[in-house]
Amino acid sequence: MLAEHPAERPNQDRKEPTYLFSEKQVMEKSEIARRFLDTRTRLNNNVDKANNFLVKRFYNIDHNAYLEGALPGKTKELLGLVASACLRCDDCIFYHAIHAYRLGATRAEQEESLNVALVVGGSIVVPHLRRAYELLEELYA
Amino acid sequence: MLAEHPAERPNQDRKEPTYLFSEKQVMEKSEIARRFLDTRTRLNNNVDKANNFLVKRFYNIDHNAYLEGALPGKTKELLGLVASACLRCDDCIFYHAIHAYRLGATRAEQEESLNVALVVGGSIVVPHLRRAYELLEELYA
Amino acid sequence: MLAEHPAERPNQDRKEPTYLFSEKQVMEKSEIARRFLDTRTRLNNNVDKANNFLVKRFYNIDHNAYLEGALPGKTKELLGLVASACLRCDDCIFYHAIHAYRLGATRAEQEESLNVALVVGGSIVVPHLRRAYELLEELYA
Amino acid sequence: MLAEHPAERPNQDRKEPTYLFSEKQVMEKSEIARRFLDTRTRLNNNVDKANNFLVKRFYNIDHNAYLEGALPGKTKELLGLVASACLRCDDCIFYHAIHAYRLGATRAEQEESLNVALVVGGSIVVPHLRRAYELLEELYA
Amino acid sequence: MLAEHPAERPNQDRKEPTYLFSEKQVMEKSEIARRFLDTRTRLNNNVDKANNFLVKRFYNIDHNAYLEGALPGKTKELLGLVASACLRCDDCIFYHAIHAYRLGATRAEQEESLNVALVVGGSIVVPHLRRAYELLEELYA
Amino acid sequence: MLAEHPAERPNQDRKEPTYLFSEKQVMEKSEIARRFLDTRTRLNNNVDKANNFLVKRFYNIDHNAYLEGALPGKTKELLGLVASACLRCDDCIFYHAIHAYRLGATRAEQEESLNVALVVGGSIVVPHLRRAYELLEELYA
Repeated sequence: MLAEHPAERPNQDRKEPTYLFSEKQVMEKSEIARRFLDTRTRLNNNVDKANNFLVKRFYNIDHNAYLEGALPGKTKELLGLVASACLRCDDCIFYHAIHAYRLGATRAEQEESLNVALVVGGSIVVPHLRRAYELLEELYA
Repeated sequence: MLAEHPAERPNQDRKEPTYLFSEKQVMEKSEIARRFLDTRTRLNNNVDKANNFLVKRFYNIDHNAYLEGALPGKTKELLGLVASACLRCDDCIFYHAIHAYRLGATRAEQEESLNVALVVGGSIVVPHLRRAYELLEELYA
Repeated sequence: MLAEHPAERPNQDRKEPTYLFSEKQVMEKSEIARRFLDTRTRLNNNVDKANNFLVKRFYNIDHNAYLEGALPGKTKELLGLVASACLRCDDCIFYHAIHAYRLGATRAEQEESLNVALVVGGSIVVPHLRRAYELLEELYA
Repeated sequence: MLAEHPAERPNQDRKEPTYLFSEKQVMEKSEIARRFLDTRTRLNNNVDKANNFLVKRFYNIDHNAYLEGALPGKTKELLGLVASACLRCDDCIFYHAIHAYRLGATRAEQEESLNVALVVGGSIVVPHLRRAYELLEELYA
Repeated sequence: MLAEHPAERPNQDRKEPTYLFSEKQVMEKSEIARRFLDTRTRLNNNVDKANNFLVKRFYNIDHNAYLEGALPGKTKELLGLVASACLRCDDCIFYHAIHAYRLGATRAEQEESLNVALVVGGSIVVPHLRRAYELLEELYA
Repeated sequence: MLAEHPAERPNQDRKEPTYLFSEKQVMEKSEIARRFLDTRTRLNNNVDKANNFLVKRFYNIDHNAYLEGALPGKTKELLGLVASACLRCDDCIFYHAIHAYRLGATRAEQEESLNVALVVGGSIVVPHLRRAYELLEELYA
């Protein structure tokens, strides 16, 4: 028998953020973003096909964590960006930098977020910072 | 609006494992286990009271990851033990070592699991190994 | 000879944030915060006494990373909170949760930030989440 | 003078596991596995040539950690898989997923093991999970 | 059957370093060192009693990694200190700081080593740095 | 207003180390080094162009951490190598191995340093060790 979570607070406070730019627009602007998103889609198809219950549950929670709530969607993507940079995952950094861009984050906001990750995470973050700046250069050209 | 996960495979393959020992029995046997579980309960009450939607979802997934399935519950707890030791979290190590014990894992099985964590994770795991052995000493006395 | 950094953009865009609550008020409200800040002060005195050039430089950069800029101070503290929770450092979590509180972050904003850390960092973050909630309980009582 | 370890328990309880599939069979089945194993062999030749005492000792311990003992070889490879996924090393994930396959682990067992790593390690594990699924897709085709 | 490592280079180049101070002297000088070493000994007794083959092998390799060789023992302890501080393990930091002290490292050498760890590892290292400075304060009083 | 650090110890004890080999010589000797340094330069140009205040400050501290002081420059690069290997960053490993080589570190000194990282960091370091040995093979040919 599967454990069930009890009744929850009404979720009126969680909603999809409004994107200023589509994924397609991002891919037209940045070659790095295009390659990243293409590979991600191809590999995710594989995961989807496997139809693993727990993976899907996890993806669902992951999606929910970035919905608009007490904090705006843009801020949450910047939180995701910092988490990704601290834990040093290029794919995750690209993902959240693209989403933050699509939600209207300025380049300065992205850089300041990455700076928190740099100071908290140290010089080991620098190679990832360099690759992130390459993406930012294309996105904000 | 909250994103929903699509239809899932019937969960007949997930069920609660059968514990050989209750949490109470563990607490009577080991003072370390008792202190750990008491603190954990006290702090979790706090989290429960906050009634945060996403935290509850996460706890639910976490619970599901260790249910009986293709792998027996005991093996999954040993997987959790190795993950916890590699990532160096005493609380998590204690939690999974206790659950593995309750599901009938022998001391040798626990030690071999910890050895995988030691070799993969290196000497930085050793201080946690020492504290884990202190718990094992009490559990398997 | 010491390497020097070249001329920089005028730093008019960096300024100290305005705190709604003093450190003293926080310490009166929360016993956990008081103990944490007392220990931190005592140990930092030791570090200050050593007067190490590079440590001081690092502390200075660290201070600068959280100043008001393109992003408000409160948001930066929440970024610091997520970074700290992902990298699983209780001291750092306490520090940024307290600063975020002093800058007016609501409990819901703190919880949503911690949720990003939880989803990105996984269940290994949970023991730290529990201790963070204990602090939040006192701060937002 | 080199420090020596004292007398040890007779090692009757450690023996090589029996593989159901050879490395060659794996390489014929999966292009990803072939590329990974080829690169690994080429780079290991380099390390072998250096003939470093401590590296060889470490490799020997590493080998011993996965021998049959209180736990079967297959389970130990799944423990190694979880450790590798938690610590986010693609090479290590590929290595243990291949070995688990060669020892008869089913795809479901591999997925459930990866799920423990996903829940313990968080979404930062997802990019590695995607690449692992790509390998599983080829191995279990 | 247990895998054996092949013939090795003669180990003439590995020898025990010569300590300037005994562990006892350190414990008389520093209360922090005394508490740490006492707890470590107590917990290690537990591990020794278990007589686990692989743990003993690992302890042996660990011992060998810090023997005099191409690099002096003191330098190796400082390497161990940096590794420990980067990976944020107080026990390991204390252990290597004490050994470096016993091998004649000056306080400035310890601080410069910790600075490398601070810059590489970031502000998340700071709480460990503070506790390390507390120990250094006692050792070099 | 920007926070300023107070007066510091005179920095007479920090000076640029004397390199035995230029970066150009390294690039002629090793194709791996050449590719790494070319990419690094290209990406750093991007970062430089952004002219971010805090990134420049961080780069400056980073530079200072490896200057000659109580410890020689070569030793500090080996400390950086161990930190990089423990935290598992190929770019950082390459960077410090190249600098250590340029400052006269022998291959045996590099291997012994990597061994400390291997033992502290565990088998998860091995894939990085293999790639480091490939570079060492070219540098010390």
